[in-house]
Amino acid sequence: MTDRSTLRDLSAPLFATRHIGPSDADRGRMLEVVGYESVADLLAVAVPEAIRTRGPLNLPEAVGEAEALAELRALAGRNQVLTSMIGLGYHDTITPGVVLRNVLENPGWYTAYTPYQPEISQGRLEALLNFQTVVSDLTGLDVAGASLLDEATAAAEAMTLARRASKVKTDVFVVDADALPQTKAVLATRAEPLGITLVESDLGGELPECFGVLVQYPGASGRVASFRAVAERAHAQGALLVASADLLALTLLESPGEQGADIAVGSSQRFGVPLGYGGPHAAYMAVREGLQRQMPGRLVGVSLDADGRTAYRLALQTREQHIRREKATSNICTAQVLLAVMASMYAVYHGPEGLKRIAQRVHRHAAVLAAGLREGGVEVVHDEFFDTVLARVPGRAAEVVAAAAERGVNLRLADADHVGVACDEKTTTDHLRAVWAAFGASGLVVEDLDRVTSDSLPADLQRTSDFLTHPVFHSHRSETAMLRYLRRLQDKDIALDRSMIPLGSCTMKLNATTEMEPVTWPEFAAIHPFAPAGQAEGYAELIATLEGWLAEVTGYDRVSIQPNAGSQGEFAGLLAIRSYHRARGEGGRDVCLIPSSAHGTNAASAVMAGMRVVVVACDESGNVDLADLAAKIDKHRDALAAIMVTYPSTHGVYEETIVEICERVHEAGGQVYVDGANLNALVGLAKLGEFGADVSHLNLHKTFCIPHGGGGPGVGPVAVKAHLAEHLPAHVSAAPYGSAGILPISWAYVRMMGADGLRQATEQAILSANYLAGRLAPHYPVLYTGRDGLVAHECIVDLRQITKETGVTVDDVAKRLIDYGFHAPTMSFPVAGTLMIEPTESEDLAELDRFADAMIAIRGEIAKVASGEFDKTDNPLRNAPHTAECLTADEWAHPYSRAVAAYPVPGLRDDKYWSPVRRIDQAYGDRNLVCSCPPLEAYED
Amino acid sequence: MTDRSTLRDLSAPLFATRHIGPSDADRGRMLEVVGYESVADLLAVAVPEAIRTRGPLNLPEAVGEAEALAELRALAGRNQVLTSMIGLGYHDTITPGVVLRNVLENPGWYTAYTPYQPEISQGRLEALLNFQTVVSDLTGLDVAGASLLDEATAAAEAMTLARRASKVKTDVFVVDADALPQTKAVLATRAEPLGITLVESDLGGELPECFGVLVQYPGASGRVASFRAVAERAHAQGALLVASADLLALTLLESPGEQGADIAVGSSQRFGVPLGYGGPHAAYMAVREGLQRQMPGRLVGVSLDADGRTAYRLALQTREQHIRREKATSNICTAQVLLAVMASMYAVYHGPEGLKRIAQRVHRHAAVLAAGLREGGVEVVHDEFFDTVLARVPGRAAEVVAAAAERGVNLRLADADHVGVACDEKTTTDHLRAVWAAFGASGLVVEDLDRVTSDSLPADLQRTSDFLTHPVFHSHRSETAMLRYLRRLQDKDIALDRSMIPLGSCTMKLNATTEMEPVTWPEFAAIHPFAPAGQAEGYAELIATLEGWLAEVTGYDRVSIQPNAGSQGEFAGLLAIRSYHRARGEGGRDVCLIPSSAHGTNAASAVMAGMRVVVVACDESGNVDLADLAAKIDKHRDALAAIMVTYPSTHGVYEETIVEICERVHEAGGQVYVDGANLNALVGLAKLGEFGADVSHLNLHKTFCIPHGGGGPGVGPVAVKAHLAEHLPAHVSAAPYGSAGILPISWAYVRMMGADGLRQATEQAILSANYLAGRLAPHYPVLYTGRDGLVAHECIVDLRQITKETGVTVDDVAKRLIDYGFHAPTMSFPVAGTLMIEPTESEDLAELDRFADAMIAIRGEIAKVASGEFDKTDNPLRNAPHTAECLTADEWAHPYSRAVAAYPVPGLRDDKYWSPVRRIDQAYGDRNLVCSCPPLEAYED
Repeated sequence: MTDRSTLRDLSAPLFATRHIGPSDADRGRMLEVVGYESVADLLAVAVPEAIRTRGPLNLPEAVGEAEALAELRALAGRNQVLTSMIGLGYHDTITPGVVLRNVLENPGWYTAYTPYQPEISQGRLEALLNFQTVVSDLTGLDVAGASLLDEATAAAEAMTLARRASKVKTDVFVVDADALPQTKAVLATRAEPLGITLVESDLGGELPECFGVLVQYPGASGRVASFRAVAERAHAQGALLVASADLLALTLLESPGEQGADIAVGSSQRFGVPLGYGGPHAAYMAVREGLQRQMPGRLVGVSLDADGRTAYRLALQTREQHIRREKATSNICTAQVLLAVMASMYAVYHGPEGLKRIAQRVHRHAAVLAAGLREGGVEVVHDEFFDTVLARVPGRAAEVVAAAAERGVNLRLADADHVGVACDEKTTTDHLRAVWAAFGASGLVVEDLDRVTSDSLPADLQRTSDFLTHPVFHSHRSETAMLRYLRRLQDKDIALDRSMIPLGSCTMKLNATTEMEPVTWPEFAAIHPFAPAGQAEGYAELIATLEGWLAEVTGYDRVSIQPNAGSQGEFAGLLAIRSYHRARGEGGRDVCLIPSSAHGTNAASAVMAGMRVVVVACDESGNVDLADLAAKIDKHRDALAAIMVTYPSTHGVYEETIVEICERVHEAGGQVYVDGANLNALVGLAKLGEFGADVSHLNLHKTFCIPHGGGGPGVGPVAVKAHLAEHLPAHVSAAPYGSAGILPISWAYVRMMGADGLRQATEQAILSANYLAGRLAPHYPVLYTGRDGLVAHECIVDLRQITKETGVTVDDVAKRLIDYGFHAPTMSFPVAGTLMIEPTESEDLAELDRFADAMIAIRGEIAKVASGEFDKTDNPLRNAPHTAECLTADEWAHPYSRAVAAYPVPGLRDDKYWSPVRRIDQAYGDRNLVCSCPPLEAYED
Repeated sequence: MTDRSTLRDLSAPLFATRHIGPSDADRGRMLEVVGYESVADLLAVAVPEAIRTRGPLNLPEAVGEAEALAELRALAGRNQVLTSMIGLGYHDTITPGVVLRNVLENPGWYTAYTPYQPEISQGRLEALLNFQTVVSDLTGLDVAGASLLDEATAAAEAMTLARRASKVKTDVFVVDADALPQTKAVLATRAEPLGITLVESDLGGELPECFGVLVQYPGASGRVASFRAVAERAHAQGALLVASADLLALTLLESPGEQGADIAVGSSQRFGVPLGYGGPHAAYMAVREGLQRQMPGRLVGVSLDADGRTAYRLALQTREQHIRREKATSNICTAQVLLAVMASMYAVYHGPEGLKRIAQRVHRHAAVLAAGLREGGVEVVHDEFFDTVLARVPGRAAEVVAAAAERGVNLRLADADHVGVACDEKTTTDHLRAVWAAFGASGLVVEDLDRVTSDSLPADLQRTSDFLTHPVFHSHRSETAMLRYLRRLQDKDIALDRSMIPLGSCTMKLNATTEMEPVTWPEFAAIHPFAPAGQAEGYAELIATLEGWLAEVTGYDRVSIQPNAGSQGEFAGLLAIRSYHRARGEGGRDVCLIPSSAHGTNAASAVMAGMRVVVVACDESGNVDLADLAAKIDKHRDALAAIMVTYPSTHGVYEETIVEICERVHEAGGQVYVDGANLNALVGLAKLGEFGADVSHLNLHKTFCIPHGGGGPGVGPVAVKAHLAEHLPAHVSAAPYGSAGILPISWAYVRMMGADGLRQATEQAILSANYLAGRLAPHYPVLYTGRDGLVAHECIVDLRQITKETGVTVDDVAKRLIDYGFHAPTMSFPVAGTLMIEPTESEDLAELDRFADAMIAIRGEIAKVASGEFDKTDNPLRNAPHTAECLTADEWAHPYSRAVAAYPVPGLRDDKYWSPVRRIDQAYGDRNLVCSCPPLEAYED
């Protein structure tokens, strides 16, 4: 026997100790401030007993980072990377190394938040403006948005936009028979609850009466044809024309705008974004002048800062769901910023001539491929195509596809008689030879065919208009120049790699490197979403495992990871409720109760699911007003479909009455939807499915560590109890597994945390929020607390009285925080005039204190405004943020000193973030809407 | 037939168009400034006909980035990653993901230059200071340097340091019989030319008369024993004690300093740096007080800036070879900064308690392993060990090693009867079981053995002293905190990802992502240098191919990539010359002629190779003075061993007389060594081996794109004509293939550039240098030009007259360039009072112009000093660099404005680098030498 430590004693600390910021010693100090002896004591008071789950989560024991990577390598090894020539909107592409490493693999880009605070987001806003310029130029339309979730949902958004914009009184929307199958499927999912009738048409003849038409350009079959005539017929009857178009093809083909399209949608995936088994990729939407205020999703616009300098910000936000709620044009919230940035940088790096050459090469491969097939006696269906050749092989299609797979190439089995072959940036002559061989065409010589084969694009559809003429698309051709451009933009922004982002409801926690690494492994990144299942066994297991873990964590019975944003998860969950009622013969149930404090998306999603929104009041503590709830239930008892609540509430409080709310709704025949946005306050402590909820969506980009990417990607799995499982829709997103490519992140997180780690993270998130509340309470009123004045995982500080007394607004505080090096907390949600702070478990005590110190110092500044020591309007709060340029100007006309402006706390002298612009004039930008790259002269002032 | 483009016409632009900055159109504009019609015309005048090679390089046709990566993947696939328990100074380790991604894979760190300009290097200087603190604390010695090349060369440096420092008159150096075999081999290589006699000893009894003793601690056999008695015996006779020590073991064992060591050396590889088939890794050296001025390599020290703020810089530079030349204590120039940074960050992330736990776990595995072997009837040689167990298996050693390999584990075949097994951070109980099985020991249960087995460290050698008590080793335990610390340091520095680094002689060109990616693939990163050759076939082919390509490029017959720095390549080449003369019975030839303009390393290397340095004068044009050369040859004809010249010369000029110089030296029986530092001016245009040179070293970290890493790694292959091939030394560096792990970088560069691309790069480098010379010549005298006033790939601007007239120095210009966002050109080399500018081919025209504009604007500022418009001493040049802090101070007492200081050219308002400190007081730091982390109070001013 020995008294030495054993191997077990000496085992490496678990990942949880790296993920969770504070140490044991820190927790001791934090508990002192909060006034509890132990975390358990705190939880016993903070978290209502009624919702607590018993026993630990049933998850495999946590493994270390190296072991998790080894397991992921093993899963990756069970995916087979073949050359995919399947097409259908997904094409292999070469991500330029400099973009891969410095965007997709760089925390400076991927840990950023949505650019709601535009001053500290100028880098990614510029990248998004480039994206909009690419889309607008290539589609030939006036205004493009800053990305949507995928091509199919973008098409669905276009459908509803057309309905809103068209004056025709009909519910018919015409869909190109040659549209992508997944687009048709998603359109069907979206159309049904809204009462839209889809009519499929080959668009060759007259149109039925309709409010809009969707044309696939080029078609799923590869066919390229002008749709001018279709657009004219549509316009003649007051309908809108939507073109779902391939951006690469548009470098060679007449643009949708030139052919009369009102709206264009599509994917930017083939601009350097890995396939990722279906996503995430950035879809796009562009519209003609006049429709921009109806457009869903985010839109970046140009404005001016307080010094008159050109600056970027999100434009026309009054359109968006978080403001318009049930009157919103869409429930879209998250975009696909990281992927849109990548696509835009691909265009910046290649420039118009490079993109055109890539397109020509893709087309040339297709043309030679078709020539070879014909030469080999295979019938080619369309004479005019861009990248996709449709071959007719009666009865032999499956055989050809199998023969190609044996040669390492996936083709599209269109039907028993037809095979589709799509060429892409990576296609080589070797691939052509493999495909020919699969078709049984032999003796073909690429070079000979190449010499004698003409291009196969319609002569009258050749693009003649310029695109990407802005200098940004001509200045970064060398890798060195590109690298520096990326660095320059990144340096303008605050992301998690610089400082805490204390955004209530957004859970900006660590996105660990180990979680991120597998995302760019080829075995995960290079799989086509329609690759045969046998080539994606690793993915299948990873997805099934993750869905199982999420079910265990939430207490639900079935989880689907298909929805590629929280909004899509919500929509899917509500559809399941709708379908459930209808299956039981209670199709009349269409009222959705939503508390007034809810996320704006809730109401928007309910409307999309064909429901009527009835608002339930909240009491002064921010909880659902039970009396009002009872009244609303009574009033709508027979029509009651569901209630949608967030738990803990959007006020950051564990409502004690949640169990009762669920019971009352159930008793009235309704279903309970719990928004999972605040799941970070529950994991390991309570399970939604156990305390009465029927369905939820989760946000893997909040609780489960998928980075926010500057405003997307997100993943919004929907989780349901058993009775709703069969009612889950199959086509909410374009790809079968949504944004499969980033699921390894959440898998790794759960695998490395285990049951204990996940619970500890939740406990720490609650302790940290209460610690901040405790430190700030002497200086700011903390709103909405639960028992013993405790909050859940976030806290709201109330500025309203301060604003009334001093004129200093939440906006002033938020912008002043930039001078202190911080991203502001969530502003004016759920209550106007407040700041909602969510520290998460990942911030260590030093950073929590740095933030608290900043907030307290700002409170001191506010006091000086109140006392008159600072001028009412010319003070460091109102003038924030201060740029280095304004602080080093020769003239300094303010009544406070430069040092007070720049270095209000001493730590800033060691580590100072400089805002690239001063406060941005939001109204000016909306009045003077510019949504693509401004001419260089704009920067000259 | 068709007039369409063919597939060939449409093929993707080659990598050369990304590597080379300027476009065709740019070249046109540049040629106008230089005054030539075409690049060919320029070259015809600039590059002497006598040296031009005929015909293109015989290299495989260039492939694109994707293809090169695919070929590298195939090579990687031919390496087999087994678990290596071989030990011998190389141990598997877990690189924390956050360090891997944000240091080793981050251009902000890897593209930085050596921190000679300390103001823009504060980030990596802090990291290096942390490294020095780690080494100093763990070794228990007073001063540690900022890294050496590998453990074996560090031991050799320690040997010569001991010889210089010891007063004993003897040539004997005693080496521990239990020293690492590669250390013994390198010591032998180094000792011979210096006349040092190595005596191997088990150190058990009396020491022979000697100037120093090297103890391996723990020994190569794993044995751990106190060397106090050895140190006492050594000191008693005036000899120094060198301990070659394992840093991880030192967390548990009494430190070398506490046992009386004067010097400690070793490797920091196992602190998170991948094996890389032998390198690059950072070695360390630490010395007791009194020896620091004799220490080789770089040393980071603490000083103050102009505002009295704590700041870091390289200390005691007057020791270094670039100043001391043939009186230098070492030829060491490059360090291993990137790897030292990684190792230091590993210590920062784990902290003392984490490191200790890792060490305890490693030891525990070894203890249990040994217990199991004994239990299984295997004799274990040493009872006391740290991580390595030596087993005695008479006659069966090879069989055991083979059996372990079958189980996926590499062991050390010590000799026919002994097997070594080394445990490391990655060792698991599965590995123990595999090893036991290989030895034929069965029925062992880890847990049982663990319970009953004591630790096997000598009780009287347990470490009791603290280490890493500085807060930096206690503040970054969460991944978030670590990430931000890395970002904060990185942001302080200028690297190639921000702006041009126009360092003459250093060739700071693009380090492309595609070149860098394979470095961190496990198949290259996780191979032990002594893994069986059959497991490294991919490496073998990559190395052979690269050596062949380098031979083709240089016109030599044989290349060895072993030397892991230029200095080592020089030394190896000179040893080959020495051996050649001796083999021909001309051992008396020991004079090495070196022009006065040579790099300081040349002379230092010659001395190390046992040669006498004779300096040859240069004429006023900077060329070798032929008359003086003739005189020196005459004087030393019979003793002439070699001449060492740089070509093009260190003045950046193609000396017309090079062929004649070679002939004259050859005629006198000498060999010609051409320093390959300036190879970037020759590749594809001229071959060293063709115009008369016999031997050269190359710098892969200059011409062949290995990044400078902030001051290392470097690779310095030696290239020789056939007659010298058999004379190349086999043990210049520790690992058989030196820094094998980074060779994929240069392989990829040559593979993607091909013969045309490499030649175009050289042409562009020459054009760009002449363009800059052309733009600057109206403002500054350009020194040393060749025909028609042309330079080669770099140009020297002369400040001496300006300094005389205005008092503005090169230092002032260099520091003022920081305010303009640039790293200064090479200062005062090869001529004091000048700046040597090398733009390289990778900078695009916009950046060249931005730099030229800055230099011209600075010339305008100098003119204002001359005219009296600016004060003689209180002017923006003398006060540069200006920090944001000084520019935003409430008081501004200077006679020029803040805006003049901050934004002398308008572009800076869009993109401004802020120096983190003002000008650093070099002398203060050397007078008050502090070389480890200063206490926090030091930062408080």
